[in-house]
Amino acid sequence: MNGDQPVAVVALGGNALLRRGEPLTPGAQLRAARAAAGSVAAAAAGRRLVVTHGNGPQVGLLVLMTESYQAGEPWPLDVLDAETEGQLGYIIELELDNAIDDRDTAAIVTRVLVDERDPAFGNPTKFIGPVYGEDEARALAERRGWHMRPDGDRWRRVVASPEPKRVIQLPAIRQLVGAGMMVVCAGGGGVPVVDDGDGGHRGVEAVIDKDLSSCLLAVELEADALALATDVDAVYVDWGTPNQRPVHAVAPDALRALGLPPGSMGPKVEAACRFVEQTGGRAAIGALEQVRELLDGSAGTQVRLDGPEMAIGTTTKEVAP
Amino acid sequence: MNGDQPVAVVALGGNALLRRGEPLTPGAQLRAARAAAGSVAAAAAGRRLVVTHGNGPQVGLLVLMTESYQAGEPWPLDVLDAETEGQLGYIIELELDNAIDDRDTAAIVTRVLVDERDPAFGNPTKFIGPVYGEDEARALAERRGWHMRPDGDRWRRVVASPEPKRVIQLPAIRQLVGAGMMVVCAGGGGVPVVDDGDGGHRGVEAVIDKDLSSCLLAVELEADALALATDVDAVYVDWGTPNQRPVHAVAPDALRALGLPPGSMGPKVEAACRFVEQTGGRAAIGALEQVRELLDGSAGTQVRLDGPEMAIGTTTKEVAP
Repeated sequence: MNGDQPVAVVALGGNALLRRGEPLTPGAQLRAARAAAGSVAAAAAGRRLVVTHGNGPQVGLLVLMTESYQAGEPWPLDVLDAETEGQLGYIIELELDNAIDDRDTAAIVTRVLVDERDPAFGNPTKFIGPVYGEDEARALAERRGWHMRPDGDRWRRVVASPEPKRVIQLPAIRQLVGAGMMVVCAGGGGVPVVDDGDGGHRGVEAVIDKDLSSCLLAVELEADALALATDVDAVYVDWGTPNQRPVHAVAPDALRALGLPPGSMGPKVEAACRFVEQTGGRAAIGALEQVRELLDGSAGTQVRLDGPEMAIGTTTKEVAP
Repeated sequence: MNGDQPVAVVALGGNALLRRGEPLTPGAQLRAARAAAGSVAAAAAGRRLVVTHGNGPQVGLLVLMTESYQAGEPWPLDVLDAETEGQLGYIIELELDNAIDDRDTAAIVTRVLVDERDPAFGNPTKFIGPVYGEDEARALAERRGWHMRPDGDRWRRVVASPEPKRVIQLPAIRQLVGAGMMVVCAGGGGVPVVDDGDGGHRGVEAVIDKDLSSCLLAVELEADALALATDVDAVYVDWGTPNQRPVHAVAPDALRALGLPPGSMGPKVEAACRFVEQTGGRAAIGALEQVRELLDGSAGTQVRLDGPEMAIGTTTKEVAP
């Protein structure tokens, strides 16, 4: 087996698993997962891989379905999150097994502990589900205890995005990785649970950032590399301007100093910096198609403790927005 | 750890996970899973447990949701099955962890290989999803290639229920069970896949009987006992008549000779007989509330190679239909 090879964690962005702007259909989902699995497979030689994934478009669709199905009561977000862990866990597991011959793959339904006193619960910021008019939004806030916020000229539900504290299935993940298996886990950042005050846990309606969960997992598994794969090929300075340039290599402090906005690259930058600072390993942010190069250090934004202040590309290139 | 204790597989019926006739709401689901976990926990001392589960009501609801959500294309049954593995895997995993202190629990998204040449694919019998009028049913058969059959005076889709051939995640399940962990797996009988003719697998719209998958898993794990837990406390003779009597203990041949109908106890009887014949171990069919007693041999219908021709209770008792 390959139980003594170094471990790398590869986080597949929710948008990396579905082309931005493409409708979420079964066919589109399968094609995207197949492409992702092919890229992960190209990185499999000589390392053990743990694959995590986002679930934004997928859980969004389940929220729409449970809200639009009038005959029943809507299902809470923790359960819908778990459904996407099954759905995407299955599809990714299947495609990885098809793409990689020399190892077994298993997807684990992963709970992640968060702290009920996390300040995020007092200030929910993560939009979820359909848009509503103001009157309906206020009625839902009243009836269901939801937090609602304006999103443009409509309203949407917001939930907290608390810090991941502990990956509850870590012993199982470690056991399988130790045996040289490929593990798919922490989908959507993991299903959030809190202490129930009685020695156990209960589910909570929140969204854990999947890059931060992937970082926590990579640290706990003593991984030597963390790749955050998305639909952009690097972190950029002056992003969205004619002068945009990719950051090739950078130390954590300098990367943090860019102050990237929370909604876009922010969580990836934070996850990459934490991993590098806590382990001295390599983190990389870049294109889904380049998982091997991200892990080898030859593509994307490479974040390293001994990285330069900031090595920036000299040419502007066209990239998908 | 408890890695040297004997292994038992406990199959929780879909109806055992939701009181018969009760609407499937998040609250009802959680309460049912908590009750099931409590019963499993009572059986945990001195053995390693693997828990499987049905998904009839749950996948039925997802089919209704995906069919009623007009904005999208309906999702195929294999993916919906996987969603219930995430959903129920999470809820059962959580409640087992809350009920049992001395071991870790993980739910594994499980694929099960079936044979595309299985005669079941030529004769689909398993009703799935909503009822339709005849015209609509014929249009759906045309448009989607579905098999439709009359169900009373309406029509419904039918899918094949092929034999499980191989539990693809067996190496991962074996690894975790070997380490003394509690594993939840093969939900809904497992997500059915077939050989894709190119060395890999692809999902297929079918339903694998979860008792037969549980039997296959129990044989492969060299379990010494298989408990099939449902909402009836035993196999009965003259079921549904004033003369109904529970079968307490029986040898496989005598149990098979009862010829129980496929829709009710049939698959449980077949799974119990196969396990006993292939391993010489103990199989039991009975009430969800009595998992410990089923495994100890003191409740339900006990099926054993050295069992009697048929030990039948002498009194008729009231049982839920």
